[in-house]
Amino acid sequence: MATESKKDWILMATARSPTNIAVVKYWGKRDEALILPINDSISVTLDPSHLCTTTTVAVSPNFDRDRMWLNGKEISLSGGRYQRCLREIRSRAGDVEDEKRGICIGKEDWGKLHVHIASYNNFPTAAGLASSAAGFACLVYSLAKLMNVREEQGKLSAIARQGSGSACRSLFGGFVKWEMGKVLKCTKDSAGSDSIAVQLADEQHWNDLVIIIAVVSSRQKETSSTTGMRESVETSPLLHYRSTEVVPKRILQMEEAIRTRDFPSFARLTCADSNQFHAVCLDTSPPIFYMNNTSHRQVPHSFIVTNWFFRIISFMEKWNRFEGTPQVAYTFDAGPNAVLIAPNRKVASLLLQRLLFYFPPSTDTELKSFVLGDQSIVKDAGIATKEDIDALPTPPEVKDNNASAQKFPGDVSYFICTRPGKGPVLFTDEDQALLHPSTGLPK
Amino acid sequence: MATESKKDWILMATARSPTNIAVVKYWGKRDEALILPINDSISVTLDPSHLCTTTTVAVSPNFDRDRMWLNGKEISLSGGRYQRCLREIRSRAGDVEDEKRGICIGKEDWGKLHVHIASYNNFPTAAGLASSAAGFACLVYSLAKLMNVREEQGKLSAIARQGSGSACRSLFGGFVKWEMGKVLKCTKDSAGSDSIAVQLADEQHWNDLVIIIAVVSSRQKETSSTTGMRESVETSPLLHYRSTEVVPKRILQMEEAIRTRDFPSFARLTCADSNQFHAVCLDTSPPIFYMNNTSHRQVPHSFIVTNWFFRIISFMEKWNRFEGTPQVAYTFDAGPNAVLIAPNRKVASLLLQRLLFYFPPSTDTELKSFVLGDQSIVKDAGIATKEDIDALPTPPEVKDNNASAQKFPGDVSYFICTRPGKGPVLFTDEDQALLHPSTGLPK
Repeated sequence: MATESKKDWILMATARSPTNIAVVKYWGKRDEALILPINDSISVTLDPSHLCTTTTVAVSPNFDRDRMWLNGKEISLSGGRYQRCLREIRSRAGDVEDEKRGICIGKEDWGKLHVHIASYNNFPTAAGLASSAAGFACLVYSLAKLMNVREEQGKLSAIARQGSGSACRSLFGGFVKWEMGKVLKCTKDSAGSDSIAVQLADEQHWNDLVIIIAVVSSRQKETSSTTGMRESVETSPLLHYRSTEVVPKRILQMEEAIRTRDFPSFARLTCADSNQFHAVCLDTSPPIFYMNNTSHRQVPHSFIVTNWFFRIISFMEKWNRFEGTPQVAYTFDAGPNAVLIAPNRKVASLLLQRLLFYFPPSTDTELKSFVLGDQSIVKDAGIATKEDIDALPTPPEVKDNNASAQKFPGDVSYFICTRPGKGPVLFTDEDQALLHPSTGLPK
Repeated sequence: MATESKKDWILMATARSPTNIAVVKYWGKRDEALILPINDSISVTLDPSHLCTTTTVAVSPNFDRDRMWLNGKEISLSGGRYQRCLREIRSRAGDVEDEKRGICIGKEDWGKLHVHIASYNNFPTAAGLASSAAGFACLVYSLAKLMNVREEQGKLSAIARQGSGSACRSLFGGFVKWEMGKVLKCTKDSAGSDSIAVQLADEQHWNDLVIIIAVVSSRQKETSSTTGMRESVETSPLLHYRSTEVVPKRILQMEEAIRTRDFPSFARLTCADSNQFHAVCLDTSPPIFYMNNTSHRQVPHSFIVTNWFFRIISFMEKWNRFEGTPQVAYTFDAGPNAVLIAPNRKVASLLLQRLLFYFPPSTDTELKSFVLGDQSIVKDAGIATKEDIDALPTPPEVKDNNASAQKFPGDVSYFICTRPGKGPVLFTDEDQALLHPSTGLPK
């Protein structure tokens, strides 16, 4: 093979993938190994300029084993999920030729070549911000590019799915549906091949939506989603009904709401599904409390987190009720962070004003490190300094109710203003690579 | 009629009725006016010597209108629920003769005679301790005795049910099932006549059970059960499945667990059903948080209450897991108070030791006002002074986990140690009457 002749080359590919937030939740697997879900789910892909994973994958005859660095720290690739993704991609690898560098790799060679992987999240890992979704989507996408895998995006999503279920939804921008696939397993090979992500609409379809994420804690969550799902599937009588009766109807309603940009329906479905997901966790034996961090009760913070979940919901519900029609949709994944969605910039600035009124920064927090992401929303909200936050008026919906007008400085670590975004992209500029082009080690 | 001749007499009856705690919950009505539930429920009647309502009803030709005093304060009887109970009882009244006092009331006279009612709870009203259950059970029972209603207890339970659904279960001691009755409404008159309480086993059947109630707050709860139920029936997709599929199976399993005194099954079913009830509340739009007092967030106490719900559950689950088999069952109604059930006195003393370890009294609270009810449990737990509480060792299940070994003084207002108890009783001794025998007014 060509690689025999010349051994000092390194071939690299660098890609960026978005994270996503489910508006119809994925909760429960029918096959643990293949990560086949018990119901369809729908997500919004978040703008990668605010939340994304960047991954560089490199291959070289000089590499003696597969290695990976996550946020600069080397981690083990021995886990079944990484192994499965690597195997699936390698088995689909194509021929690669780089004439001017004299590199020629035959599809049969990939099995003998080791890879180096460097991955970086521009947001806290495992804080309930779907870092594994962006991570595995980016790993599979960049490897597919490096190894010249000629599969459509849907097929790649089925591979990313085996790394982390929700990762399959991060292979597309805009609004994405993860189809659970046939409930009955097919032959060994094709098993789960129909459990793929499909794009419902791209990021331009409903581009006036604004998404504000309230990050409450960047602590790693106590019950992993994998464990939680398994316990729910095994013990929650309500989950089976949710997955077979409630979700199929909701999926159709959500698809229609997205197609017609019907925000009130979109908001009602999003909030109801988030609450039902947490209801199923509570129906699990023993109950799972993602809206509560009981194992961290020694830090005062956990007291805040606990209340915060209920408080943010009641504030948003109060506003929606006051206006008579939903102004904002809220959704929570397996963690305390809230994702709030407004129909347009105008309402988003009213939302941000409310969020900053109720949850101002603690005295030692700078405004610029408190509201991240799209600063134009902050500008629209008329917030230029922390004094502007102090000066925010009491929202009319709580004017006559002092109890609700209370403020909770420090409850929120920071806000991220973002929007629906595009899917994975490949970087051509080598400067953006996370691995050194000559050593193949992290820069 | 005899009452014409001699008008200065007062006829009285005084009774005491227990409260009850549901182990398979009632949540949701199929008929609001008649209070017909959407599923069967099962409860344990609590020993009236610790939690009960005492009611004196009096009738006299001198009374110019129906009047009622609750805990010494006069309240209106105009409410539909009181009116319905009074009408139902009057329509079933029989002849009463008191020869030595020369009183003779024909069944036709009752419609013209007014009643005075005095009722007293020996525990906080509307603090989630089912005061309305004990109250309406006692009202109906005492009126039935006064007016010589010759109906079996089941028929009386159908009347109490129209005052407060769960009141029907307080007409029996021990373990009680409230049968929802035929789902299809029968003719106007007989509608709901089959939605009655039946005794599964008396208080002697499983008399080694010990029940400890942790009272967290005696505040009136913010969302009334009536409103909450209606919202759940209207908006929770999971409630319909719970009532039609989950509960019917649980009822059979719970009846069997009670029949065979199978505590592990009893505990698992009780905990699972309590959690599912709160899950359905969370699945309601907008969600109902009985495990959280968001509207009282201005008092620091609400922070404690919030966490407390999750904390007590995780402590109990941790203990059960550690022992490998359920030591304790927990259940929460539409309020933050926890009801904990232990299989016998030995385990109950271990339970009380744990509860006092985690939730000691605040410095200004006396032991005797902190642990109420059956003091022999306190004695078994080796607790004679507050110093004994401070000296309690860390429970073995949390020894290796400092986070869980934290203490929360003041979280619990007080504990009540009790047991399964008997149904309503009539007092013959006039001294126990709450109304003055000559004036018919509260003593």
